[in-house]
Amino acid sequence: MNLSSKLIEKGVEAFASLPGIGRKTALRLTLHLIHQDKSVTEQFTNALGTLRENIRICRDCYNLSDSEWCSICTDARRDRTTVCVVEGVRDLMAIEETHQFRGQYHLLGGVISPIEGIGPGDLNIEALLERVKKQEIKEIIMAISPTIEGETTMYYLAQKLQPLGITVSAIARGVAFGGELEYADEVTLGRSIIARIPYEQQ
Amino acid sequence: MNLSSKLIEKGVEAFASLPGIGRKTALRLTLHLIHQDKSVTEQFTNALGTLRENIRICRDCYNLSDSEWCSICTDARRDRTTVCVVEGVRDLMAIEETHQFRGQYHLLGGVISPIEGIGPGDLNIEALLERVKKQEIKEIIMAISPTIEGETTMYYLAQKLQPLGITVSAIARGVAFGGELEYADEVTLGRSIIARIPYEQQ
Repeated sequence: MNLSSKLIEKGVEAFASLPGIGRKTALRLTLHLIHQDKSVTEQFTNALGTLRENIRICRDCYNLSDSEWCSICTDARRDRTTVCVVEGVRDLMAIEETHQFRGQYHLLGGVISPIEGIGPGDLNIEALLERVKKQEIKEIIMAISPTIEGETTMYYLAQKLQPLGITVSAIARGVAFGGELEYADEVTLGRSIIARIPYEQQ
Repeated sequence: MNLSSKLIEKGVEAFASLPGIGRKTALRLTLHLIHQDKSVTEQFTNALGTLRENIRICRDCYNLSDSEWCSICTDARRDRTTVCVVEGVRDLMAIEETHQFRGQYHLLGGVISPIEGIGPGDLNIEALLERVKKQEIKEIIMAISPTIEGETTMYYLAQKLQPLGITVSAIARGVAFGGELEYADEVTLGRSIIARIPYEQQ
C-alpha cells in the first residue's frame, strides 16, 4: 500500500504494530478516526495513555490493579483462606467469568520453562510462600494449564507448598463438557478414567 | 467480561469503540499495551494524535493531505489534464495500487443518495466544475461504483461536464478477471456483452 500521506502512514504503522492487526485493518481504523471528530481520537488516546501510565501491579497477588492493592484482594466478601494460583491475568479473568471461585488469586507471571530460560526464580513463587506464612491460607488451588511446562510448575509448587501444612489442589483435568470422547487426546482420556469420581459428586 | 480494573475497562472500551473490534480483541490489545514498555503506548497514542490533529483536506482535490495541497496534486510528474473522479480516499488508494493511472484525482466525498438525504450540493461537484474551468483538463474519468447511487451520480456529473467541451468517460464495467461467467449477475453479464470490444484491444 503506497500511501500519499506520511501522517496516515504513521497512523497505519501504529495500528499495525498491535498483535493481530494487519495493514489493511490498520488503514480502515486510521481512516475511521480521521473521519470522526478530533475529540474521538483524543478520548481514544487519553484512555490508553492514562491506562498505561497508571496501571499497577497488586502488592499481594500481582494482579493488574488501579491502586496499591487490587480490587479482588481488597474485597472483604472474598475468602482469604483459599488462594488460586494462575499463570497470568487472562487466566484470572477466565476463572472470574465462571463465577465459581470466591477466594483470592496469586499470579505467577508465567510458568517454569527451561527452553525459554524461565526458572522458578523468575516467577512470583517466593512471594506466594511468604503469603502462605503471613496470611491464614488453608488451601492453594493450582489452576495452571496442563502443558509440560505447567505440570513442571505445579510439581515444583507442590514440593514447596506441601511442607507448609496446607491443602494443595489442582484443577480437575478431563474431557471437556460437550466434548466428544473419541476426539479427546489419549492422555486426557486416560487420566480422566484414572481420576474418575463417584457419579453423585459430578 | 467483568474486569476488576476501571483503567483496563476504559482501555477495552476505547479499542472496542473502533469498527470491527469486539470486546475480546479489545482486551487482548489492551493487555498487549500493558505488558509492553510505557513508551510503546506513548508512541502509539502520539502517532494517532498527531495524525488526527494535523491531517488536512487538499484544497484542489479533497484528498487527505499532510499540507495545503496533497502529494498527488503537487507531483509535477503527474498528468494535470486527466482527472479521475472518485467517491472517497479508499477508492483513490485502490486505483493508486493498480499503478495504471498517472493523472490527478477529485474526491466527491460520497455519492448522490436521496434515501440518505445526500444531494449534489453535499458533494464536491461545484469545485470540480471550477477546476475544469480553471485547469487545462482534457478528460474526466468517472471511477464510481456502479451501484444505483453511483450510476445516478455519474449521470448527473456527465450532464454537468459534457457541456464544458471535455471528454467524459467512465471506468469499464464487466465480468471480473478470473471471475466465472456463470456466477456473474445478469446485469453485469448483459452489459459486458453489449459493451464488448474487439479482441485485440483487450
